[in-house]
Amino acid sequence: MNIDRFRVRSGDRSAITRHSASYTSGLRDKEAAARQLQEGVAHLEQRLELLHAQAEHALLLVFQGMDASGKDGAIKHVMSGVNPIFTEVHAFKAPSSDELAHDYLWRAARALPARGTIGIFDRSYYEDVIVVRVHPEILASQHLPRACRGPKIWKERYEDIRGFERHLVRNGTTIRKFFFHVSRQEQQRRLVERFDDPEKNWKFSARDVRERQHWNAYMNAYREAIVATSSEFAPWYIVPADHKWFARLVVAEVINQTLDKMALKTPRLTPTEKRNLMAVRRQLMA
Amino acid sequence: MNIDRFRVRSGDRSAITRHSASYTSGLRDKEAAARQLQEGVAHLEQRLELLHAQAEHALLLVFQGMDASGKDGAIKHVMSGVNPIFTEVHAFKAPSSDELAHDYLWRAARALPARGTIGIFDRSYYEDVIVVRVHPEILASQHLPRACRGPKIWKERYEDIRGFERHLVRNGTTIRKFFFHVSRQEQQRRLVERFDDPEKNWKFSARDVRERQHWNAYMNAYREAIVATSSEFAPWYIVPADHKWFARLVVAEVINQTLDKMALKTPRLTPTEKRNLMAVRRQLMA
Repeated sequence: MNIDRFRVRSGDRSAITRHSASYTSGLRDKEAAARQLQEGVAHLEQRLELLHAQAEHALLLVFQGMDASGKDGAIKHVMSGVNPIFTEVHAFKAPSSDELAHDYLWRAARALPARGTIGIFDRSYYEDVIVVRVHPEILASQHLPRACRGPKIWKERYEDIRGFERHLVRNGTTIRKFFFHVSRQEQQRRLVERFDDPEKNWKFSARDVRERQHWNAYMNAYREAIVATSSEFAPWYIVPADHKWFARLVVAEVINQTLDKMALKTPRLTPTEKRNLMAVRRQLMA
Repeated sequence: MNIDRFRVRSGDRSAITRHSASYTSGLRDKEAAARQLQEGVAHLEQRLELLHAQAEHALLLVFQGMDASGKDGAIKHVMSGVNPIFTEVHAFKAPSSDELAHDYLWRAARALPARGTIGIFDRSYYEDVIVVRVHPEILASQHLPRACRGPKIWKERYEDIRGFERHLVRNGTTIRKFFFHVSRQEQQRRLVERFDDPEKNWKFSARDVRERQHWNAYMNAYREAIVATSSEFAPWYIVPADHKWFARLVVAEVINQTLDKMALKTPRLTPTEKRNLMAVRRQLMA
């Protein structure tokens, strides 16, 4: 799959709406897609063995999207076959009081993946330029000194996030960011399903329905943030998400192509290390 | 005291050697200095009450210097009168394997002070552009991918540190950085004392003596790092440190003048909060 068509180039304001949310790249056969996903996950597992053995690179995957956009399901399906020792998922909910007592990147920094592992952020520090931008009253509750709440705050946050990500990339973390692009109609359908299907009742939240009123404000906040923070070193991908099976395929493909580019190899022993290894082998056999 | 003379302006390469390490600003009377320090510490305690009550600002103090430059003694003497609830000291030693598995700012980010408190870094992320620069073999052991170890690494680290500090300042943390400038002769005298005085024997480390051979390399690494990372928002101060009593006075004065500028006030209640408070008072009296 040509994943480049989903990548946001720096400054490209029309990237989010380039493809419709129901785009499937000509694919139609859900069964075939499921088989393709399975192959992708198997390939992923192999590459992760190498990532882990080499223990130099980390991979940070950021998932953002509206409620019911299918992020969680995608994380589950793409990562389900993977040895949990390689991966850790962090779901960022409303910040705790300890987290609010620090800068907004603090809780994300603490959760960063170690070399040799994948860190998955289900929501992330991007909430601080999205939900907080849509609801500025949240900002007022974050205990920032008045001088830190000026009109330049969003521009500064984009700049700081870019700097944060560039630093991570320079130190061995590869970053890929996914925006799950779901249409307003499809979101409505999924939320209604949560009412009607008793099995899904537990997922219902009045807040999700209330937030729908701010749909356009959210789309604007996403567009601004994504355009300002998509870079060569930490690109955003717009994932058409009206079809869950297609969204999952795109995510698996982006991760696999990223890992393929990383030049992962089984660590080679130096001649001395090799001699030592052989000495131990002789001991073992004696 | 005019502390501005110790502040490093961005790009000022001669700042470190402007004053001799034995400079005392014309002060000579150690007793008088001790009394002045005591007054400074009392003032500090008062300001910190406000910092804590307001809980919007944090203060990050970074201490760097050669072995035996007197950082630890200064931290002890300046902070000894202060309620420990306001302050936390982090001594950064050789990184653990968990720390090496992350970027070099990670362990510092985790230790950042919360709003309303002071964080003291006894050594810091600056070690990663100083000791690591003097001993590049350390870099080789940090598990960085080869592509991340190019010749631009120091310039990139300065840039990332500046970005990290700017982000913190934008979110309510005030930063002050101290370089304890001790002369090579005075350091020798203090290290010899550790041999000769049984009470100080425990402080002796063969490593400290070995590192003296790299004196000039250290001074160059400090100069480069300080010049590149001293900014309006996170300035370095060069503290003449051959006289311990003077170094402590300078540190206390910088902290106090910083806190005085921060416009700290007891939090004011809104009229509604005040009415609620009075209602509770009536309940209490009933």
